Amino acid sequence: MISFASDYIAGAHPAVLQHLLETNLENLPGYGADHYCAQAAEKIRQACACPQAQVEFLAGGTQTNAVVISSLLASYQGAIAASTGHIACHEAGAIEYSGHKVLELPQQDGKLPAAVLRQYLRDFYADQNYEAMVQPGLVYISHPTEYGTLYGKQELEELAAICREYQLPLFLDGARLGYALQSRQTDVTLPDIARLCDVFYIGGTKVGALCGEAVVFSRGNRPPCFSTSVKQRGALLAKGRLLGVQFDALFTNNLYAEIGRHGIEMAEQLKQIIREKSLRFFLESPTNQQFVIL
Amino acid sequence: MISFASDYIAGAHPAVLQHLLETNLENLPGYGADHYCAQAAEKIRQACACPQAQVEFLAGGTQTNAVVISSLLASYQGAIAASTGHIACHEAGAIEYSGHKVLELPQQDGKLPAAVLRQYLRDFYADQNYEAMVQPGLVYISHPTEYGTLYGKQELEELAAICREYQLPLFLDGARLGYALQSRQTDVTLPDIARLCDVFYIGGTKVGALCGEAVVFSRGNRPPCFSTSVKQRGALLAKGRLLGVQFDALFTNNLYAEIGRHGIEMAEQLKQIIREKSLRFFLESPTNQQFVIL
Amino acid sequence: MISFASDYIAGAHPAVLQHLLETNLENLPGYGADHYCAQAAEKIRQACACPQAQVEFLAGGTQTNAVVISSLLASYQGAIAASTGHIACHEAGAIEYSGHKVLELPQQDGKLPAAVLRQYLRDFYADQNYEAMVQPGLVYISHPTEYGTLYGKQELEELAAICREYQLPLFLDGARLGYALQSRQTDVTLPDIARLCDVFYIGGTKVGALCGEAVVFSRGNRPPCFSTSVKQRGALLAKGRLLGVQFDALFTNNLYAEIGRHGIEMAEQLKQIIREKSLRFFLESPTNQQFVIL
Amino acid sequence: MISFASDYIAGAHPAVLQHLLETNLENLPGYGADHYCAQAAEKIRQACACPQAQVEFLAGGTQTNAVVISSLLASYQGAIAASTGHIACHEAGAIEYSGHKVLELPQQDGKLPAAVLRQYLRDFYADQNYEAMVQPGLVYISHPTEYGTLYGKQELEELAAICREYQLPLFLDGARLGYALQSRQTDVTLPDIARLCDVFYIGGTKVGALCGEAVVFSRGNRPPCFSTSVKQRGALLAKGRLLGVQFDALFTNNLYAEIGRHGIEMAEQLKQIIREKSLRFFLESPTNQQFVIL
Repeated sequence: MISFASDYIAGAHPAVLQHLLETNLENLPGYGADHYCAQAAEKIRQACACPQAQVEFLAGGTQTNAVVISSLLASYQGAIAASTGHIACHEAGAIEYSGHKVLELPQQDGKLPAAVLRQYLRDFYADQNYEAMVQPGLVYISHPTEYGTLYGKQELEELAAICREYQLPLFLDGARLGYALQSRQTDVTLPDIARLCDVFYIGGTKVGALCGEAVVFSRGNRPPCFSTSVKQRGALLAKGRLLGVQFDALFTNNLYAEIGRHGIEMAEQLKQIIREKSLRFFLESPTNQQFVIL
Repeated sequence: MISFASDYIAGAHPAVLQHLLETNLENLPGYGADHYCAQAAEKIRQACACPQAQVEFLAGGTQTNAVVISSLLASYQGAIAASTGHIACHEAGAIEYSGHKVLELPQQDGKLPAAVLRQYLRDFYADQNYEAMVQPGLVYISHPTEYGTLYGKQELEELAAICREYQLPLFLDGARLGYALQSRQTDVTLPDIARLCDVFYIGGTKVGALCGEAVVFSRGNRPPCFSTSVKQRGALLAKGRLLGVQFDALFTNNLYAEIGRHGIEMAEQLKQIIREKSLRFFLESPTNQQFVIL
Repeated sequence: MISFASDYIAGAHPAVLQHLLETNLENLPGYGADHYCAQAAEKIRQACACPQAQVEFLAGGTQTNAVVISSLLASYQGAIAASTGHIACHEAGAIEYSGHKVLELPQQDGKLPAAVLRQYLRDFYADQNYEAMVQPGLVYISHPTEYGTLYGKQELEELAAICREYQLPLFLDGARLGYALQSRQTDVTLPDIARLCDVFYIGGTKVGALCGEAVVFSRGNRPPCFSTSVKQRGALLAKGRLLGVQFDALFTNNLYAEIGRHGIEMAEQLKQIIREKSLRFFLESPTNQQFVIL
Repeated sequence: MISFASDYIAGAHPAVLQHLLETNLENLPGYGADHYCAQAAEKIRQACACPQAQVEFLAGGTQTNAVVISSLLASYQGAIAASTGHIACHEAGAIEYSGHKVLELPQQDGKLPAAVLRQYLRDFYADQNYEAMVQPGLVYISHPTEYGTLYGKQELEELAAICREYQLPLFLDGARLGYALQSRQTDVTLPDIARLCDVFYIGGTKVGALCGEAVVFSRGNRPPCFSTSVKQRGALLAKGRLLGVQFDALFTNNLYAEIGRHGIEMAEQLKQIIREKSLRFFLESPTNQQFVIL
């Protein structure tokens, strides 16, 4: 199984770089207090149809997962994830480094099935010895998953309902969200995600930016002193403009959607070629991560 | 006491942004494996006259301090710093977040005096109860300091000698190193720093880059699995080119020196104006941080 | 300056050991769910005149400080302490190991003066840059202090008032509390402490037990899932009876008070002898830690 | 599946308590520097036929696992364990709290098969992306396992050989080691364990002590400044005698072996009764943990 290409072999989308160029000589306050960050946040709130959302910018995916998860969890809690979840395998133990266990559950096509989650939580609290174990503190999913698969709206609704019942925030890792939203087989929109998830991020690094992820707290639930936590974890950029300006560009004139659409189109063309060569896929992926059996 | 202006209200130096623009469409491997990172590292090795140096790029100052210090320390060790050191006051507890105490010693003009360090280490090991205390694991200094002051070569030699004697790595925080090197009152060069310090960083964020610090391990002493540690701490940029390309520009045609010189010149002009207005300085600063008493 | 003797060169008070002996063959549930723990907790509630207190037993002082402080703090907060506070100097960085900075303030006779605390908090929140710094999360004091000195009731009232104003829990380290309560110069009782502090511990290890400290949360403010936190920090004894039985003995027939009284009496006799020898004290200590200048 | 009884519903073995009683009035230095600790360590070295062993005493099992593992690992490393290993499930995330991931591998009858370990290590280092993952830093096994099963000598030899090949310390959790050593079906002795494992602990809490585990570093491989690490993790008892005296009793006149033998005998009788009642076992356990299907 080989991943044909990575989303980050190119630099930024030219329009993103252009915006950095044209704003470069402006004097702006540091640490994300500039008006490009404010403007980008407002555009994201609108794209999410979520006026109360709090939007924060961070530099990369592992950093975002670690900062968000460690800020939301109490010290005795862990993060539930599918065993193939990015935080469970490929982030060098960044969550554990913050003191929290990743509670791995069985996956199906890279997704965390609602039934699996429900059973785990029932069993957990039915165990009279449960206080000796890591307490579940939030649910992490990725969309697209690490296999390129997507949750359907119904699946997200079910996960969200369980999370509400157990008062666990639902956190969606959207490192490649741009492609998920443009898949020809999805029924999930950005406003759906803002409605169903308590927190999620809109990936920039893999969708046209040089770096940057936009975290959205959709319930006014940004943890207190979040900027202190960001700095404490070494994740606060002095020139926050670097992120604000890029997301301002990405959310102007539908650029983010366009980049996603282009990625999906390329993937569909590639899929077609591979099928014509009679190669088989490891699984059917509706996005731009394609796993071909060679 | 008011800091008149910050080094990061502007974006990048135009030549830095230009280099990002002209390399943008190249396909490059991620995570710092691209040839711009390699090229920038080589130029830095030459500027340091330190062919064996290992050069790594990180995004910001607090991140660099936390990654480097926590990678060098054993779990029972702390970092010695002047009480005004950046890691002691203004980094939101990033070192403690990694489990290590900052061992604060009295400062003089923002500097850690060699005599203070020597006395502390003598007293520490003379205390028969020393195993009940945090063990000193490295010495942190900043140059320029948080007061804009500079270590003289003789002072650095003395600190380095003590560090060698006690087998403590000497780590120099060079967030504003570009200005230190161009001060009219300094006798310390970049090769001096590479010779006297075990690890230091050449700040980019405050000297012409959008983001980025170049860490130099000058004794082949980069900790094992350093890239794992960087990722684990959320500090690995997928598009490492962002840092490599910027430092490649900064170390081409003496740009880094030129930016430093320009900053110092502006500061000297400002100093002159302030003196003419009969205002007094909190202390004499030979760099571009000037603290005026109002 | 030499500490003449330590409180822990002897084993347990004979009555404590006797109680372990006479209960040894009973079959009891583990992890503190036995009736001796319950009974000891009830006796402590009565001694504190604090019926709503939640009492938990831990094994030692550094452990208790680390477990309590790290359970009460959010990840971005630190613990305020006098610079001579035990957690600041002599606990091998146990608080920092849990990710939190000890915010050291100037001490006076080993105590944290209310005026110093007030000034620090005023200055902290007046600094427009305060989000870049560790947020104060609780106030730690020791009674007796590391110098053997005691807070007066008025001093505790003032500290408690500041803590209420800033919504910071006030935590009193009572490793040697038995001696403080019996000092001839104190006006502070156990009920005073329960009334003025949000959490404190009644030291056993240094007052007649083999090991053991009784933590009292006096406002129904025991952190959620506390037993999970205790286990997570390696501090949950399987045979919790070891602590319950000992504290049951210590709080039966005024034994705890008696041991304290005896310690004070011995110290007063020693003081008398030292004075007759015309030796001088480093400072006047009203408890059984005496620091003589030799 | 019900665990019929726990090893810690009783207090201590009477001879252990008696030894605490008869040594109680002696004045002894604190923190494990007393001669009972030294004496117990010597007896353990002899029982292990391992004259170079370094022996340290800690209070409980979770604490011991956390202190030993976190002291041996570099910050970027994790601990390999069977998915049923105690550190993976029932210790409230104590290893993750110290910043390290538990790398869970498939188990067989509660054991970590050598073939599984070998395959994992081969695959790990064959993955060109391995630096993005938690590095394996040691191998944890429990003996008896959490299912009451035992490793045979051949199995331990194989695990030890793999560990040597990959330079990973092999750590054996012996919380119930006393029963393993006396099982009628074992061919593994204490000297075998000392020869094959780099570090292990001899459980006291579940084998006759009130509390206490004896950690054995069998290669002179105790980590530097270990007592600082112990204190930093809140695990240093001021009255270390409590542990030394108990282990001195346990390793006098074969008491530890006798307690183990008695536990095994009771288990065998219970097994006989259960078989006569035609009940079935979840699996065949050669020790005193018996899992009956009801």
